[in-house]
Amino acid sequence: MFSKCITTMAGSNSIIRRLFEDGMKMARERGAENVFDFSIGNPSVPAPAKVETAIKQILQDRESVFVHGYMKNAGYDEVREKVADYMNRHFDAGMTQDNIMMIAGAAAGMNIIFHCLLDPEDEVICFAPFFSEYRNYALNYGARVTAVPPIPHFRLNVEGFKAAVTEKTKAVVINSPNNPTGVIYTEEELRAFDAALREAEAKVGHPIVVISDEPYRELAYDGARVPYLPALVHNAVICYSWSKSLSLPGERIGYIAVPSAMTEFEDFMNALNMAGRALGYVNAPSLFQLVVAECLEELCDVEAYDANRHLLYEALTANGFECVKPEGAFYLFVKSPVPDENEFVEAGRELGILMVPMGTWGAPGYVRLAYCTDPAMIRRSLPAFEKLAARYHKR
Amino acid sequence: MFSKCITTMAGSNSIIRRLFEDGMKMARERGAENVFDFSIGNPSVPAPAKVETAIKQILQDRESVFVHGYMKNAGYDEVREKVADYMNRHFDAGMTQDNIMMIAGAAAGMNIIFHCLLDPEDEVICFAPFFSEYRNYALNYGARVTAVPPIPHFRLNVEGFKAAVTEKTKAVVINSPNNPTGVIYTEEELRAFDAALREAEAKVGHPIVVISDEPYRELAYDGARVPYLPALVHNAVICYSWSKSLSLPGERIGYIAVPSAMTEFEDFMNALNMAGRALGYVNAPSLFQLVVAECLEELCDVEAYDANRHLLYEALTANGFECVKPEGAFYLFVKSPVPDENEFVEAGRELGILMVPMGTWGAPGYVRLAYCTDPAMIRRSLPAFEKLAARYHKR
Repeated sequence: MFSKCITTMAGSNSIIRRLFEDGMKMARERGAENVFDFSIGNPSVPAPAKVETAIKQILQDRESVFVHGYMKNAGYDEVREKVADYMNRHFDAGMTQDNIMMIAGAAAGMNIIFHCLLDPEDEVICFAPFFSEYRNYALNYGARVTAVPPIPHFRLNVEGFKAAVTEKTKAVVINSPNNPTGVIYTEEELRAFDAALREAEAKVGHPIVVISDEPYRELAYDGARVPYLPALVHNAVICYSWSKSLSLPGERIGYIAVPSAMTEFEDFMNALNMAGRALGYVNAPSLFQLVVAECLEELCDVEAYDANRHLLYEALTANGFECVKPEGAFYLFVKSPVPDENEFVEAGRELGILMVPMGTWGAPGYVRLAYCTDPAMIRRSLPAFEKLAARYHKR
Repeated sequence: MFSKCITTMAGSNSIIRRLFEDGMKMARERGAENVFDFSIGNPSVPAPAKVETAIKQILQDRESVFVHGYMKNAGYDEVREKVADYMNRHFDAGMTQDNIMMIAGAAAGMNIIFHCLLDPEDEVICFAPFFSEYRNYALNYGARVTAVPPIPHFRLNVEGFKAAVTEKTKAVVINSPNNPTGVIYTEEELRAFDAALREAEAKVGHPIVVISDEPYRELAYDGARVPYLPALVHNAVICYSWSKSLSLPGERIGYIAVPSAMTEFEDFMNALNMAGRALGYVNAPSLFQLVVAECLEELCDVEAYDANRHLLYEALTANGFECVKPEGAFYLFVKSPVPDENEFVEAGRELGILMVPMGTWGAPGYVRLAYCTDPAMIRRSLPAFEKLAARYHKR
């Protein structure tokens, strides 16, 4: 009865989502205090107070039919103008509202961009490890992901990119700060990538669009700077979400920003609008468009995540686990003490620890821990991690 | 640079959306009082007061990370339970939360269902005239719409359906109250359709899913009853949106309800969740899930639409235009006085009247007027309609 595409996807259903729902079930069975759920990137800090203030102000000041009504597919003009101003203020982006399309979160944005670019059999290059849902986003349009293998310290594998390009390559995804490794790519890495990209385009004879998936842009620690990608990489489109920076993942709100220098810029914007409408998005949720426009300079409590980062990183390394020290985002990337990370995940699960195995993300032998959690839960989990370490003789 | 699919779609871009944006431009140029925009179904009455009350109450009572956070892809359990209770109360639907998936509006729902069912080259049957975007929703998955031609009074063309079925037919869309005709299908029509559907399924040897696209369910006039489709038609899925009933089209909030008797029910629900996540929807906007759950028995000011309906219908028929008297929804379906409705639309446009030509909706020779507008605009438009009628010697 079902389409081949959905049947294929259902065969490799999201492990995170299963763990997320599993975790809720375990909490009911064992008691919430005995479950240490590091599975999903669901922000644990509240939205900034300004979000609530803005909602109330908007409901008070504006007409219901404006706040909750249709607008252009790309979003309210005034909202897009404010987002463009923000981009100009922070990144000298040279944008106007015409460069901005409001979207229902980064996953929506990726789909909209993929739909614009990908024909069946086309290829999207992703650097492993990568958010496994990218595969499905490509599969929706009959296309597929080509994974560039990881290199030491999970830096940007430019040589691997060169080797992965084919005539079918239409897009590349860059995700920095990275989910799941926490790595932030440097200007040097991105410049080297841009050079490789230009070479690749010359070789294959068509543009390759770079999609910068950056929901973690503001989540950077120890004063790390996240380079503004379009200043370093040509034909780069930004796909942004306020899910993490304003703790609004359920609201589905973000934007696509396309620099004016993009190849066929105007057609690109029209194609995005067309794809968004055709996929049924119509427009990004209206009230929250107006809300984020009032909260552009707001940020959730990143220091809370930073404290969690230290707590978890130090506890796990002290217990002998090999971890990447995250520069950004809110994930700890941990090497499984045994080659099959699923065995390690299962051993953790028996102790109430939920971790995501990274095999389907292109990094077998690793697990991901999301530390966007209550610090009390992290502290409660430490004896379980000690037991887990003891099991693998890691102390 | 762009995919074949998007290039095809862009070639037949939505006339309504062009008119909508055109109307805003004309209003700036000629003055808003000289533009009579009947193009888009953008509700003109405010959301019920309860919507604002509910928003404030939820923000006050619930935690930020709950209100704005991730939940199951299908939506909050408590919201789905309340929607199921509503279905049981009003339609004796026999549903629980397991039958409900919250979605980001009916366009999202249609895409999610299409993605679950349609392989490339598959066919979806739609009864002309139909919302032209259905074509793109099918095209996203490489499938196509087969249009059943209209019959007198735009009743349900069951014989036409029989003739349209092929082995490629995977789904049928029913839209009642109908956009654009305002027709509500009767129980007798739907029973006859169900018999034809069973025959068709036996002939082609696979299930054909019926998608009931019903954003206008509560917009019915003169005491008309809208039959509950799954009670009359088997394998019917409801695709609902609060866009019209609560005047929330910008918020993108609705649900899919699948009766437990659906073929492969459990797999169907899993497929819907998979498709929603893969398409980037992740979940329906979280705050508005909680809001609609508090507003299930609320309804926008349908009497205002009814008054508009009388005003416009009577004025146009008095001017000699042939119109379908709408039983529901908020559109007036008008026969063009000349065979080419585009010529008529252009003549209206010169007088400031924006109407949608119905050629791409499967009904050439007709236009659609959305009367979800300020009644003052309708009254102001009447002299323009008189002039338009005079032009065609219709008085």
